[in-house]
Amino acid sequence: MNRQQLIANIRSKRSFLCVGLDTDPLKLPKHLQGEDDAVFRFNCAIVDATAPFCVAYKPNLAFYEAAGPAGVEVYERTVAYIKSHYPDQFVIADAKRGDIGNTSSLYARAMFEGEHTADALTVAPYMGKDSVTPFLQYEDKWVVLLALTSNPGSHDFQMLEDAKGKCLFEHVLETSQQWGAGADRMMYVVGATQGKLFERVRKVAPDHFLLVPGVGAQGGSLDDVCHYGLNADCGLLVNSSRGIIFADSSEHFAEVAAEKAQELQQAMSRWV
Amino acid sequence: MNRQQLIANIRSKRSFLCVGLDTDPLKLPKHLQGEDDAVFRFNCAIVDATAPFCVAYKPNLAFYEAAGPAGVEVYERTVAYIKSHYPDQFVIADAKRGDIGNTSSLYARAMFEGEHTADALTVAPYMGKDSVTPFLQYEDKWVVLLALTSNPGSHDFQMLEDAKGKCLFEHVLETSQQWGAGADRMMYVVGATQGKLFERVRKVAPDHFLLVPGVGAQGGSLDDVCHYGLNADCGLLVNSSRGIIFADSSEHFAEVAAEKAQELQQAMSRWV
Repeated sequence: MNRQQLIANIRSKRSFLCVGLDTDPLKLPKHLQGEDDAVFRFNCAIVDATAPFCVAYKPNLAFYEAAGPAGVEVYERTVAYIKSHYPDQFVIADAKRGDIGNTSSLYARAMFEGEHTADALTVAPYMGKDSVTPFLQYEDKWVVLLALTSNPGSHDFQMLEDAKGKCLFEHVLETSQQWGAGADRMMYVVGATQGKLFERVRKVAPDHFLLVPGVGAQGGSLDDVCHYGLNADCGLLVNSSRGIIFADSSEHFAEVAAEKAQELQQAMSRWV
Repeated sequence: MNRQQLIANIRSKRSFLCVGLDTDPLKLPKHLQGEDDAVFRFNCAIVDATAPFCVAYKPNLAFYEAAGPAGVEVYERTVAYIKSHYPDQFVIADAKRGDIGNTSSLYARAMFEGEHTADALTVAPYMGKDSVTPFLQYEDKWVVLLALTSNPGSHDFQMLEDAKGKCLFEHVLETSQQWGAGADRMMYVVGATQGKLFERVRKVAPDHFLLVPGVGAQGGSLDDVCHYGLNADCGLLVNSSRGIIFADSSEHFAEVAAEKAQELQQAMSRWV
């Protein structure tokens, strides 16, 4: 999916919600636990219920890989289900990959080749340019680079300052813009918990989309994120995972997920 | 495997060689291409031939994930083959994972739980403490944290200096030593291509094992690595991948791999 299509979807749905499919098999509603293909069926129900209110889905690979090869297969079928039934949804494989060039090329093959694969992949920047650019060799596929994450450990290294007061996350934002994709096929992860630091992100990367985790369970505020993070093209994808998909553990889990997604969509509609 | 066992294996074999199982299906010897289960059979032949000369194997997950769920299953069987037939071999899952705490816990489950799983996992440090410590919750399992990698992009961010001239890779080495594992269950990746920077690594981390990729195809020198990197317990695992496993593409690939591994073992035997 290209940038113009993404922006058009955001405008028409008045939503920049991304639903995180962090489908921990141990947290499924009781009536599904132990059922055949429970994770896939849960994901399909969540997607069918929430699709009207969001523009993106973000399956986190860890939750699938934890079940071994069978889990990876559920990840692939989930992505294929979304892209074939809801082709206007932007799918982000949250895998935080990144390795030397020839190895990143293999990860790119795994993530992006095939008929119904993800539109974007989260990538860790620590290894620099040649670890990231192999993911940019596919038309209409995106890199979502970690810049300033939402977790407590984000300040261990990302806030490291050089002699001029510029932080590592600002170097990542600045340097990676020279890697050829511009704002058209690169986004950055900036955690909702980072508050005012959004202003510093926007100084260095005014045009890029930001993928924003951390609203909800991790404590970030949607209004703060919008206040500091919105740009003329919206420029935000705000993710909520547990707060939507595991909001209810009864047989009505999908309806409750839809309600939670709609609440966020309505809060977002004031901004776009 | 614990540190004392690893050191004992190095001493008895006079080798600190790690063989990288970067088994690209497209590079298999012609007579194996298209055969049933070719990657697994290739890996078993390589392991059987090289085991006398090395103390560790490092399958790189990218090369398995590129084949989808079936590839992940080959990775799992390869690790099980090594750990059941050669229990004194240290197995490093080279996956460069790292995510927020609850997600890293899931990756740890995927990598470390089960009867014959890897002894160690490579982890990217960008997200800080809570992205790394979940991997340290398993007895005798190790984290191999990226510090100073072997690739051209390593200097994009890892050499970023603070006001006192301390680089990001030195902060990673220093800060991560406070995360509870000490030198007993944490190693660092330091590329063989980094030459004299090994001295700076050893100033901050004198006791830790270093996993050293980049000898061979990437141009690093074994003598330089030993000169600057060895410590009283050896403290090195030097990896070679393509230079061993793809040294020959005929039906004699395994014998040639053994010769290449033995050459490196003999060069290493002068140092331990």
